[in-house]
Amino acid sequence: MSASAPDVATEVGTSKAAARIRAAAIEVFAAKGYGATTTREIAASLDLSPGAVYPHYKTKESLLFAISLEGHYSALSAITKADQPTALPVDRLTSTVAAYVEWHARNHSLARVVQHELRSLSPEHFQAIAAIRRSTSKVFTHIIEAGDASGDFRTIDTEAATLAITSLGVDVSRWFPSNTHSDPAILAQRYVELSLRMVGAQGV
Amino acid sequence: MSASAPDVATEVGTSKAAARIRAAAIEVFAAKGYGATTTREIAASLDLSPGAVYPHYKTKESLLFAISLEGHYSALSAITKADQPTALPVDRLTSTVAAYVEWHARNHSLARVVQHELRSLSPEHFQAIAAIRRSTSKVFTHIIEAGDASGDFRTIDTEAATLAITSLGVDVSRWFPSNTHSDPAILAQRYVELSLRMVGAQGV
Repeated sequence: MSASAPDVATEVGTSKAAARIRAAAIEVFAAKGYGATTTREIAASLDLSPGAVYPHYKTKESLLFAISLEGHYSALSAITKADQPTALPVDRLTSTVAAYVEWHARNHSLARVVQHELRSLSPEHFQAIAAIRRSTSKVFTHIIEAGDASGDFRTIDTEAATLAITSLGVDVSRWFPSNTHSDPAILAQRYVELSLRMVGAQGV
Repeated sequence: MSASAPDVATEVGTSKAAARIRAAAIEVFAAKGYGATTTREIAASLDLSPGAVYPHYKTKESLLFAISLEGHYSALSAITKADQPTALPVDRLTSTVAAYVEWHARNHSLARVVQHELRSLSPEHFQAIAAIRRSTSKVFTHIIEAGDASGDFRTIDTEAATLAITSLGVDVSRWFPSNTHSDPAILAQRYVELSLRMVGAQGV
């Protein structure tokens, strides 16, 4: 990771007022898209004047970066907490894929913003977020490699399997909930089965 | 399908001028997002006055609908042309998944607009697009069902496998190209292997 916990808290904004502004911004960005939203609208959704946002976030982009930083660390934390490196590869992939899919389903507005508005970040901010994304992918890559090394998996292409597993999770934020899927745990279970098959896990 | 070919052509706009406007709009929508784009900007990117767009598309939403209709029929056409219903299920899934992934990679700007801006369509237009999306999913569902019936596949959950295959294809438009993938055919090959495994195809 490129930033320690206190650094991140400072970047994101620790006050309750800043947290309220981020929560309001997530809803407006998710509904209308970042580009179509003004800081004025975010303030108005909280019955605040536009000037009330400024002490916390000087620009709309700094607000997007704070949300992206918090969101990406939250997703990464969900899978690292779910992973038990001493467990069997099948169990590790099961718990991390489930955590990743459930995170995107339960936090679909936040996830939609942080996964689909990356191009609106400044180059420097994009690099900071890209580093967290690489850490996230590596969690899955390392589990797949462990499974292949132990003979539990027979993956054809580790990079492609990692890409597909993260892509399936990310894309949940585009469509969730749908007519057929509104239960994050059931969706996670289905995607765990598909992921285990993608890596050629024994007996699935 | 809910509309015949002549109906679609009328809705989309058959003139060269209309096609130029759509092509310009796809690039601007893909780069900035639909909500942040004005018809005036699209006209300006073609050195036209805003009034020159009006005879072809009365509203920005009608332009998005025309692009969505054309894009969704193009993706559906790519997979129906790739499918040979008399071929073996493994070959059918191979050719259709490859066509779907390649379509999203080769047309990633168009695909990004038509896959990620659906919420900006009017309810009536959304319904028309949703019908094409259901037809697209059904192509994969029918192949999976044929494979399960013949014993070539052993799918755990047909709906989930269809969802995952279409989701992987759609999400290509979010990130393609990347540092690791810029060749549509190679990406398609990897995703074909993963899709065959997801449905439990023999010997993959």
